[in-house]
Amino acid sequence: MRKTAAIIGGGVIGGGWAARFLLNGWNVTVFDPAPDADKKLAAVLDNARHALPMLYDTVLPPEGKLRHVNSVADAVRGADWVQESVPERLELKHRIYAQIETHAAADTVIGSSTSGFKPTQLQQGAAHPERLLVTHPFNPVYLLPLVELVPSSVNSSASVETAKQTMASIGMHPLHVRQEIDAHIADRLLEAVWREALWLVKDQFATTQEIDDIIRYGFGLRWAQMGLFETYRIAGGEAGMKHFIAQFGPALKWPWTKLMDVPELTDELVETIASQSDAQSGQHSIRELERLRDNNLVVMMRALKDQNAAAGALLNTHQATLTTPINRNDAPITTQRRTIPIDWTDYNGHMNESRYGQVFSDSADIIMKLVGADAAYIASGNSYFTVDVQIRFLAETLAGQVITVKSRVLEGRGKKLRIYHEMLGADGTLLATGEQLLIHVNLTTRRACEPTDAVLQAVQEMAAAHAALARPDAAN
Amino acid sequence: MRKTAAIIGGGVIGGGWAARFLLNGWNVTVFDPAPDADKKLAAVLDNARHALPMLYDTVLPPEGKLRHVNSVADAVRGADWVQESVPERLELKHRIYAQIETHAAADTVIGSSTSGFKPTQLQQGAAHPERLLVTHPFNPVYLLPLVELVPSSVNSSASVETAKQTMASIGMHPLHVRQEIDAHIADRLLEAVWREALWLVKDQFATTQEIDDIIRYGFGLRWAQMGLFETYRIAGGEAGMKHFIAQFGPALKWPWTKLMDVPELTDELVETIASQSDAQSGQHSIRELERLRDNNLVVMMRALKDQNAAAGALLNTHQATLTTPINRNDAPITTQRRTIPIDWTDYNGHMNESRYGQVFSDSADIIMKLVGADAAYIASGNSYFTVDVQIRFLAETLAGQVITVKSRVLEGRGKKLRIYHEMLGADGTLLATGEQLLIHVNLTTRRACEPTDAVLQAVQEMAAAHAALARPDAAN
Repeated sequence: MRKTAAIIGGGVIGGGWAARFLLNGWNVTVFDPAPDADKKLAAVLDNARHALPMLYDTVLPPEGKLRHVNSVADAVRGADWVQESVPERLELKHRIYAQIETHAAADTVIGSSTSGFKPTQLQQGAAHPERLLVTHPFNPVYLLPLVELVPSSVNSSASVETAKQTMASIGMHPLHVRQEIDAHIADRLLEAVWREALWLVKDQFATTQEIDDIIRYGFGLRWAQMGLFETYRIAGGEAGMKHFIAQFGPALKWPWTKLMDVPELTDELVETIASQSDAQSGQHSIRELERLRDNNLVVMMRALKDQNAAAGALLNTHQATLTTPINRNDAPITTQRRTIPIDWTDYNGHMNESRYGQVFSDSADIIMKLVGADAAYIASGNSYFTVDVQIRFLAETLAGQVITVKSRVLEGRGKKLRIYHEMLGADGTLLATGEQLLIHVNLTTRRACEPTDAVLQAVQEMAAAHAALARPDAAN
Repeated sequence: MRKTAAIIGGGVIGGGWAARFLLNGWNVTVFDPAPDADKKLAAVLDNARHALPMLYDTVLPPEGKLRHVNSVADAVRGADWVQESVPERLELKHRIYAQIETHAAADTVIGSSTSGFKPTQLQQGAAHPERLLVTHPFNPVYLLPLVELVPSSVNSSASVETAKQTMASIGMHPLHVRQEIDAHIADRLLEAVWREALWLVKDQFATTQEIDDIIRYGFGLRWAQMGLFETYRIAGGEAGMKHFIAQFGPALKWPWTKLMDVPELTDELVETIASQSDAQSGQHSIRELERLRDNNLVVMMRALKDQNAAAGALLNTHQATLTTPINRNDAPITTQRRTIPIDWTDYNGHMNESRYGQVFSDSADIIMKLVGADAAYIASGNSYFTVDVQIRFLAETLAGQVITVKSRVLEGRGKKLRIYHEMLGADGTLLATGEQLLIHVNLTTRRACEPTDAVLQAVQEMAAAHAALARPDAAN
C-alpha cells in the first residue's frame, strides 16, 4: 500500500519535497494557494524526473500519484507524513499547524522545512507538539541528500524515529541535530561565508564571478567529498589533528576578516551584486541554470557512487533497498532495469556505444552471481573473465530512457560461459544485442581452469533451461 | 627546451608545486633543508603520479627531471620560475628572497605560496620587487586548479603576464586578485567557516563528523560546481538576483552566528576536536586519506569535464594544449595515447570491459575526423553510426597504465566504414583488439545513405593506404 505525503506550500522547497516523495513511490497531495502553484510544481517535477532516476543503477519504484488540493484539510487527511514549507513567518506557520492538527491523525509526524525557527518556537500552541519537528532540506531537495532533523525536548522518540525512517526511505540523510539552535547548523556555516562574501563584493576586492570561481576551482571540490575537518586532518599530515589545530590558533586572532561587523545591504550593494551576477550568469535562464546544476550534481554524485564515498555512499545504501529481486527461473532472465544517465551520452545526446558494453557487462555480473560466481567466490581466487564481446546496435538510446536487459546462457560447459543479452526499450523495442564469451580463470595463476563443481553445475543447469529458447538470430 | 622551476621549501605545498611542474614536463630543482625532505617529496610525487595523469584523456608531456639541491643558490640558478613555500614568517621569507635575488636572473618571476602576507610586505627590501608576487595555491596543489595571483602596485605587467601564462601552462587557473588584502580572498571565506565550525564544536552543537556530513551531503556538492552566488541566483528563481538579495537583508541582522566573537582555542577545545576527528577518520592513515581524497577529486573533476563545467571546463582547455597532432599518413594510425583513469576500473582493479569499447569508440571518432566526418559535417546532417563492434580481450589493463591505440581502415566503400583497432601497453603488449562496422547515415531521416564525395574519397584513400598492411589475425 502506497503511503501519502501532504505537502503544505509548493514553492521551490515544497515542490522539491513533492518530487522526491513522488519519485520514491509515495502519493502526494499538495496545498499551495498561489494561482500558479501547479505550474511551478510541474517545473520542479520536470527537473526532478530528469535528474533523480539517473542517480540509480536500478529503477525507482513506480511514481506515486500527485493531487493538487484546495485546502490544508484535504491535503493532510489520511496523510502518513506532513511536510510544511510555507514562508518563514512564525504566526503563519502556527495558523497552518492548527489546521493540520484539526484534520490529520493525531500521530502523523509534521516536518517543517524552516531554516530559521527552532522546533520549540514552532510547537507553541500545538495540540500535539510531540510530533512536530524540523526537517530542513537543501535545494534541490530532489537531489541533495542532507536533511537537518531537529527535535525539541518535547518530541516523542517515536516521532523522531519515524522522521529518520521516512527520510532514509526516500534517499535522504537525516542528520540529527541534538540541540535546537537558531538556524540549526548548516545555515550558520553558510551565513558565515555569505557575510564574508558580501564584504568582499562591497569592498570591491572580488566580483561574484571571482568568488564563485574561487569556490568551485578550490575548496568547493574538497568539501563536496570530505568536508572541512577531514580535509584539514589531511593538511595536518602525520603530526596529527591536535598539532594542526593548536598551530592554527594564532591565525584566529589575526584581523583577516570583517566578520566582527555586518555589511549594510544598501541599494548600491544590492545593485552591484545583481549586476555582477547578471554579467556572470545572465546568458542562461534560471531553467537552464537549474538543468546545468542538476546535470553537474548527477555526474558528481554518480562519480562518488563508484568510489562508494561521501554522498555516493548514501546513494549505494539507498539503492540497495530498491533493487528488485531477480527471478533466476525466468527464461530469459531479466537481469536489469535502469535509467540511462546523462554521463553515458555522447555529443549526439545518444548513449555512447561503450555504455551498451557496460550494460551487458553488468548483466554478465548478475548471471555470474546467480551461478554462484559471486564476490565470495572471486575472493576465494576464482572468476570469469570476458575474452570476447560482440555488440549489435539496432536502435538509438537516449539519456533518461528506461531499459530492460534479458539475458540467457547460450553455452555453459567446462571453462566456457557464453551469454547472450537483449536490451529493450520501455515499449519493447530491441535496442541492442550483446554476446559475451567468458572463460573461467584462477586469479592466482591468471590461467584458464574449470570452475568449482557447484558453479559448473549451476551453469549447466542454466544453459539447459535456456536451450529450449529459440536461438536468437543475432547470436554467433 | 624544457623549462626549470625552482621550488624553495618542499613540504606539502612546495612538494605539490614540484609534482605539478614535473608532471607538466618542467625540470624541477628543490631546496629544503629538512633532513627528510626528499622522502616527503617522494610521497607527494607518488600521489601526484597516481592522480594527475588520470584527469586527462591524453598523455601529459614526458615528466621532467627532479634534482634535490643543497642551497637556494643551486636551486634558482638558471631557473625560469621560482616558487617559494617556506613557513609563514616574514623575516624568513625576506632572507630567502635576498638569496634568490643574488643567484637568479634579474627578470625571473618569484611566486610566493603565502596565504597570509600581502605582496607589498614580501617586497620590502627586494632588489627587484617588480617580479615578486603572490601565487597562492590550494592543497592538493597537483589537482586543484585554483591559484590566487596577487601582485602589488609595484609589480611589472610583464611579471603578472608571465605568472598567468606559467600557471595556465601547468593547468592552473590564475585568479587575478586586483587589490592586495590580508589573506587574499579564499582564506577569508575559509576562515569565516572555520570560526563558525569551531564555535559549533566548542558549544557541543555538532561534532566534526556531523559538520563534515553537513558539508559533503549538502552545500559542498553545490559549491563544487557553481559556487555561492550562482547557486543563490538559482534559488532566487525568476524574480531575479536583486529581489533575492534584497529579501536576504533582514536575515543578516539576526543573531544567528557567533561570528562577532572569536572562540578561544583552549587545550580542552583542541582535545575535543582532535578526539572527534580521530573517531571520524582515525581508521585511515593520512596516506590512505590522501589517496581517497585524490581518487574522489579525480572522478568528480572527470565527471565535470564530460559536462564541460566548472573545474572540468578548465581541464578541457588545458587538455587542448596537450593533445599531440595525429599523423594521418602513418599506417596504422596512432589514434590515442592516454592513461587509464580510476573511474574506468571495476571491483577487480582492472579496466572494465566496457571501457575498452570506449577507447575504441574514441579512436573511431578520430578516424571520422580524419576523413572529414567532423563536428561541422555532423552539424550539416550527416554522420557515421556504429552498428556492430567486436572486442577481443587479450591481457589485463590496470588504472594508471598508459595505452596506445593503433587504428586502420579495413573497408571503406559506399555507406560502409570498417575500422580495426589494436590497444597496446607501454611495453608494446597487445591488450585488446576492436573491430567496428560503421554505417553512414542521414541524421534527419535516420537512414543509411552515402557520404559526401569528399568524405567518401578520403575514406577510400585511407582504406587503400591501409590495404598494404598484413591482415590482422583477429579481424573478421
